[in-house]
Amino acid sequence: MPLLHILSQKNILTLTYTLKAGDAVIIHSSNNFNIYLILEGALILSKVFTNREIISFSILKSQDIVITSFKDLSRSNFFYKVEALADTYLLSFNHQSIQPYEKIIAIQNYQTSLRYTYMTEILAHRNTKDRLIHLLLILSELFGVVNKSYINIPLNISKLMLASIIGSNRNTVGQLISQLEYNRSIRYSKQKIIIYDMVSLINSTT
Amino acid sequence: MPLLHILSQKNILTLTYTLKAGDAVIIHSSNNFNIYLILEGALILSKVFTNREIISFSILKSQDIVITSFKDLSRSNFFYKVEALADTYLLSFNHQSIQPYEKIIAIQNYQTSLRYTYMTEILAHRNTKDRLIHLLLILSELFGVVNKSYINIPLNISKLMLASIIGSNRNTVGQLISQLEYNRSIRYSKQKIIIYDMVSLINSTT
Repeated sequence: MPLLHILSQKNILTLTYTLKAGDAVIIHSSNNFNIYLILEGALILSKVFTNREIISFSILKSQDIVITSFKDLSRSNFFYKVEALADTYLLSFNHQSIQPYEKIIAIQNYQTSLRYTYMTEILAHRNTKDRLIHLLLILSELFGVVNKSYINIPLNISKLMLASIIGSNRNTVGQLISQLEYNRSIRYSKQKIIIYDMVSLINSTT
Repeated sequence: MPLLHILSQKNILTLTYTLKAGDAVIIHSSNNFNIYLILEGALILSKVFTNREIISFSILKSQDIVITSFKDLSRSNFFYKVEALADTYLLSFNHQSIQPYEKIIAIQNYQTSLRYTYMTEILAHRNTKDRLIHLLLILSELFGVVNKSYINIPLNISKLMLASIIGSNRNTVGQLISQLEYNRSIRYSKQKIIIYDMVSLINSTT
């Protein structure tokens, strides 16, 4: 992994963060000095606007990097929130210190940039149920552990978080999950998702 | 511009395409050999699924690059469509021929990858009117030419195309445009958009 190699070889000062599921790093225009590399875990990157609106941009995993940008520092009406969906280890380092190696960052960022298309695909659905099912499919693709008869998604992901990602509310998501559980497509318990029947899940879309 | 420099310096075979507004390049799994560099113009990159569903991923402009990927070549149920919104000049070159310079591609792609977040921001709105207004704001940010009392968007963008980007239909978009014209926020004529009053446009969101 070239970036990690550069960080250690060039003695670049790094800080390690340990986030438990639900912990978040807040990045606003006045503390936007760092780049974060995900060593292990799962994160949701969102913009939180001053009117409390939240837009989730990407679901990130190990080897992805978090770079945030503010166009106009003096007038930004949002901050970034990076929230852990599982125990997550982050390495942070200063933007300036890595500048001579920006090519390495660009390459590392290529994979990360593909994650943005996932959110576009989820949000392209207008219907909340379709958005939720598409999200479950992407979570299982990114994090799913396949067992004989089911797929385990080893994240801690609250109904509120699911709702926030798809732009819905906790109650609606709760009702939709109950429907999918009733059909035996999935099981959701203590913030853990298990997909029992992928075909019936896909067929549940409107 | 380093990529263009590499292409000429290393004698890499390139083909130049000229697209008129409305022309499209179709990329499917069996002809997915090329990378495209936008020299001038404006493009919409979309996935078109076999069930005719279309998802637009990004609005691209000069210096952006188009790289498409198919995960599973044998089973892909979609193709990519790259449609011009204005007279557009594209340079295409083979994936293989540029492989030794993948770092340059990665750097060039960094800017392009940021365009994906625009579509996320548009689609995060459920309401069609809000999606349309957000799209107009982004088009004016990317392509707008500011005059004394108005912003001209020098693209040829049909109502059908606007509808396709925001996941709506031509009629609804037509009605919404009439409303915005009635409020004197914008003017839309012969596929050209002029924004007369940015503040009233933003205030028209629900």
